[in-house]
Amino acid sequence: MIIVMHSNATEHDIEIVHQRLAEHHLLGHLSRGKERFVIGVVGGNIPEALRTELELLEGVQETIRITRPYKLAAREFHPADSIIQVGPIAIGASNCVVIAGPCAVESEQQIVQTARAVSAAGATILRGGAFKPRSSPYAFRGLGEEGLQLLALARQETGLSIVTEVMNAKDVELVARYADMFQIGARNMQNYQLLEEVGRSTMPVLLKRGMAATIEEWLLSAEYIMAQGNRNVVLCERGIRTFETATRNTMDLNAVALAKRRSHLPVLADPSHGTGKWYLVAPLALAALAAGADGLIIEVHPNPDHAYSDGAQSLTCENFAALMPQLTAVAAAVGRGI
Amino acid sequence: MIIVMHSNATEHDIEIVHQRLAEHHLLGHLSRGKERFVIGVVGGNIPEALRTELELLEGVQETIRITRPYKLAAREFHPADSIIQVGPIAIGASNCVVIAGPCAVESEQQIVQTARAVSAAGATILRGGAFKPRSSPYAFRGLGEEGLQLLALARQETGLSIVTEVMNAKDVELVARYADMFQIGARNMQNYQLLEEVGRSTMPVLLKRGMAATIEEWLLSAEYIMAQGNRNVVLCERGIRTFETATRNTMDLNAVALAKRRSHLPVLADPSHGTGKWYLVAPLALAALAAGADGLIIEVHPNPDHAYSDGAQSLTCENFAALMPQLTAVAAAVGRGI
Amino acid sequence: MIIVMHSNATEHDIEIVHQRLAEHHLLGHLSRGKERFVIGVVGGNIPEALRTELELLEGVQETIRITRPYKLAAREFHPADSIIQVGPIAIGASNCVVIAGPCAVESEQQIVQTARAVSAAGATILRGGAFKPRSSPYAFRGLGEEGLQLLALARQETGLSIVTEVMNAKDVELVARYADMFQIGARNMQNYQLLEEVGRSTMPVLLKRGMAATIEEWLLSAEYIMAQGNRNVVLCERGIRTFETATRNTMDLNAVALAKRRSHLPVLADPSHGTGKWYLVAPLALAALAAGADGLIIEVHPNPDHAYSDGAQSLTCENFAALMPQLTAVAAAVGRGI
Amino acid sequence: MIIVMHSNATEHDIEIVHQRLAEHHLLGHLSRGKERFVIGVVGGNIPEALRTELELLEGVQETIRITRPYKLAAREFHPADSIIQVGPIAIGASNCVVIAGPCAVESEQQIVQTARAVSAAGATILRGGAFKPRSSPYAFRGLGEEGLQLLALARQETGLSIVTEVMNAKDVELVARYADMFQIGARNMQNYQLLEEVGRSTMPVLLKRGMAATIEEWLLSAEYIMAQGNRNVVLCERGIRTFETATRNTMDLNAVALAKRRSHLPVLADPSHGTGKWYLVAPLALAALAAGADGLIIEVHPNPDHAYSDGAQSLTCENFAALMPQLTAVAAAVGRGI
Repeated sequence: MIIVMHSNATEHDIEIVHQRLAEHHLLGHLSRGKERFVIGVVGGNIPEALRTELELLEGVQETIRITRPYKLAAREFHPADSIIQVGPIAIGASNCVVIAGPCAVESEQQIVQTARAVSAAGATILRGGAFKPRSSPYAFRGLGEEGLQLLALARQETGLSIVTEVMNAKDVELVARYADMFQIGARNMQNYQLLEEVGRSTMPVLLKRGMAATIEEWLLSAEYIMAQGNRNVVLCERGIRTFETATRNTMDLNAVALAKRRSHLPVLADPSHGTGKWYLVAPLALAALAAGADGLIIEVHPNPDHAYSDGAQSLTCENFAALMPQLTAVAAAVGRGI
Repeated sequence: MIIVMHSNATEHDIEIVHQRLAEHHLLGHLSRGKERFVIGVVGGNIPEALRTELELLEGVQETIRITRPYKLAAREFHPADSIIQVGPIAIGASNCVVIAGPCAVESEQQIVQTARAVSAAGATILRGGAFKPRSSPYAFRGLGEEGLQLLALARQETGLSIVTEVMNAKDVELVARYADMFQIGARNMQNYQLLEEVGRSTMPVLLKRGMAATIEEWLLSAEYIMAQGNRNVVLCERGIRTFETATRNTMDLNAVALAKRRSHLPVLADPSHGTGKWYLVAPLALAALAAGADGLIIEVHPNPDHAYSDGAQSLTCENFAALMPQLTAVAAAVGRGI
Repeated sequence: MIIVMHSNATEHDIEIVHQRLAEHHLLGHLSRGKERFVIGVVGGNIPEALRTELELLEGVQETIRITRPYKLAAREFHPADSIIQVGPIAIGASNCVVIAGPCAVESEQQIVQTARAVSAAGATILRGGAFKPRSSPYAFRGLGEEGLQLLALARQETGLSIVTEVMNAKDVELVARYADMFQIGARNMQNYQLLEEVGRSTMPVLLKRGMAATIEEWLLSAEYIMAQGNRNVVLCERGIRTFETATRNTMDLNAVALAKRRSHLPVLADPSHGTGKWYLVAPLALAALAAGADGLIIEVHPNPDHAYSDGAQSLTCENFAALMPQLTAVAAAVGRGI
Repeated sequence: MIIVMHSNATEHDIEIVHQRLAEHHLLGHLSRGKERFVIGVVGGNIPEALRTELELLEGVQETIRITRPYKLAAREFHPADSIIQVGPIAIGASNCVVIAGPCAVESEQQIVQTARAVSAAGATILRGGAFKPRSSPYAFRGLGEEGLQLLALARQETGLSIVTEVMNAKDVELVARYADMFQIGARNMQNYQLLEEVGRSTMPVLLKRGMAATIEEWLLSAEYIMAQGNRNVVLCERGIRTFETATRNTMDLNAVALAKRRSHLPVLADPSHGTGKWYLVAPLALAALAAGADGLIIEVHPNPDHAYSDGAQSLTCENFAALMPQLTAVAAAVGRGI
């Protein structure tokens, strides 16, 4: 349920609403928007009688029943676009954001060289995996904390902010020491312990859509994080699993446009995982911005042929640099900057 | 197999190649490109010895084994983009094409009013179904020949070319009397009798991808048409069936970019069927052009709330008119006109 | 809508109901069951007032609104299981039916040898394709009428009834001259012209589920046939297209059980196409009978390694013979014979 | 790589092989089967030279390259069926196992009543969730440790063994104190930290297939557990996510049969989640046994209409009791007991 307050409601009015909710063991989240001033009530079934009662209180304009199962992530709860700050970078604002970097951190030379190249080309956040989820227990699973240290070094060298995957609740604190933004990978979109752990942090979270997750389930996973208090969630579409085998995944740009409509959270797109082929990254990156994505996360490697993982879908530094002006042109065509 | 001829090969050289193929019960299709001059050999397994033999002939530069199962539709066979002419409109050239109109022709007033509106907004081809495939035998299935007559009337009034669906081989001649381009719907993508019947025509064919067809199967269906002699095939991505239920289909823009790479045929996108929701049509239409589509086919209805079919995914004439300048801007950003 | 008549309603009562329907441009289909005696009304929206009016007529017990979009195929319309007769064989009765034979008819020797082997093992209907739908225009597409003649010859030699695919409306008459049952393949499940053409015949129809068709769409395709007057429809699950690539399709036995519940039509299963691997045919054939299928259609070839098509999923005659007693045992376990 | 030893190889021979592997930083797992006696070598690329070298050693019969990415879980590594002991119950032996119980533990009365009913009907292991993964953070998530205590109480009352889900690595120790078998749920199939944590235990693990996991990925997740030393893994197919919406999931019995072929691990089936509808549980349970499943896990609730979760797919105690003799009959038909 959402309780819409009068624009001139007082702090006391709000306090009374919270008290009344508490009597019913319900918790209200206050959101002060420019246009609306609302209290979202999370939790199970709300008695009809309570709704009527609330509407009679001073300062309450109306109550709105929300049929969608997510609340804090819902556009109805927060009509304006949310802007999430990652270091100096604002995600969800008028400028689109480009995150770039290798699939995995492999060495100092590799990560620093890539960071310099993508920074020079215009990226503002560096990606790079220190902990890698791999289908096989025998595959390269990342450098661990050493990888995090190398990312921090690359940040020092370039000024780029850092986003990197955290795979386990127990690593949240460790990763938080080095990174500027957590990444929750597709396989972990419904790892609820992990979601709640990053939800207790204040660091922004890049939440990738699971490869067979519906848009509703994706938003519910955002809700898991937000319900713990961390509102700094950025959604990321990265392709879904379908019958098509000519591409690694099927990039679902419907989901980008629909998530932007149903939620106030920023939505990025990952055309590297979304296609699985480096030569499809550029057209799909352009398409994602045209569809309204607030930015991109792109795999770039100085030498994709020798990458430890995901080489087939990584751009070279040169191809990435060539793509940036095209992205700027399409962003401008839809009224955005980069 | 593709036989690449020397640029200075004579008609006699070509004749000899055809004879040698005929001795092996194989059929060659000659394609005279600007850059290459090639003979595509359709048919089953080609003996290795024959390849060697052919390479020794006068005028033959080399032979190329094609591992993909389609040949005439393959980019290797025809390296340059094919341009398909529909009346005065060139599909696949530097300008993107916008096809618009209602799902079904319902009345003279409806189709003429829509035709005028979309023409004024910049569309150059009118869509509208006279024969409608419907999952239920009890649903509205189109006006039939009367619908075709109304389309012809709308063409007369506006100068727009006409594309309309042909569902059955026996209707090909009838539809050809009224239309400028056949549409093969998603359900009929593997209706081989129909494919071959339009393949014996010279009228351009808009071939929609089946809702569970792989990109390879889609190109093989183009091959069915082309193998009968009709090279005027335009591909159209219209969304695939996946687990996601929040949208009618999942628009697969990976497929647009990949089909452009694997084939020389123009590729359009249908964001109306691809999303099933009118409010997602604009972002996905823009995305499709950014991904490299050669144009769009968009459902427009003067009064979607009262449409006989597909109202939920139809733009109003006003929304369509508002979309056109945005399309022009994104097309320009990727170096195309409209 | 279904109009349930009193068990003692007269012909005159029925006539009056038909007249009243006709006044509203509605068509009633009478069905005389053992337990119930009902009139199904096919067609669009039925005014509430008409329902009330009908319930007041002599002989009418009640009217039932059907929310599912199919009517003639619905279990509500015909509560008892339908039994479809193919020559001497009853499909849908207490005995399960086993149809067996090669994917394609290749030669007299091949088809007669296979027919003798599967007949000896206990199959009662012979399958074999004379017209083969193939994704590629360059693949073997069947022997055509010669194949039909060879099937007729095999019937003469063995007494087996014949089921074979008809791909085009124009071939319906030709196939009907040779076959005992039409097969509509998965690719043609929504080829409505073809469905209606076989619907105007009285010959039984084996209707395969499309590879991305929902159960509802499948039953609607049955409805297309039945609405033309041919009630002799047998459904056949043959696997759906999913993300799994280790098997050719994903056999959907949920669909077998659910179709049996929602419809009165018999349901067969095709474990050959459903799995694509000969070594999975036996377990899935057994599973289908246990799930309640009324029978099986299994690809058998005397020499799968040299089959023109589908060799990988064909059983040898020996493996088929070995499977039959296992099928009999599982059928017995669920109260059926073979 | 698999190193097949001579049946008369000595401990010393084995020791030498292990040493040689260690020199190449490779780890060998010894498996003493009745028929074969093999060492599986897990880890990355194995130099061809090493294979040759190993084959020259005393006691080595041959080396086999495994192209599948899993090794310990592969049938090649362990040709005989593995039998996993859960308390007194052997899973994978000639008798099929029936696990039954409610989705979630709700109260002492509910779990004890259900345990008595399913035990009386013939089930030998009790299921019941104390920790429930839920898409929404606002849904009932289980009683936690209190639920585990109630399960232990039900075991005391009935003698049934207990399987219950563990969702987080940090809960492994807690769950191990009460349960006889861990369940890893579909959402956690690729929660690698959790897999490795249960892999360091010796308690048997029921590993459910992820709802969009390929069979290969599923076996790789088993490999994650086994590579840590815990070989007591039982696979469980529980339906995959497809386009079909008439059922909650699509039960993939192809996967049951194929997993049995590719792996030596026992495979169970969960027709409750596989269908999502209680009236489809019986036919699909029977089908799963016919397809070769080593047992079933079935949701049973004394009062499904009032279940906190999954009521629609739960059998009543009466329906479960009625199903058991049918299961016994089908099991017998394929040569198994219950």
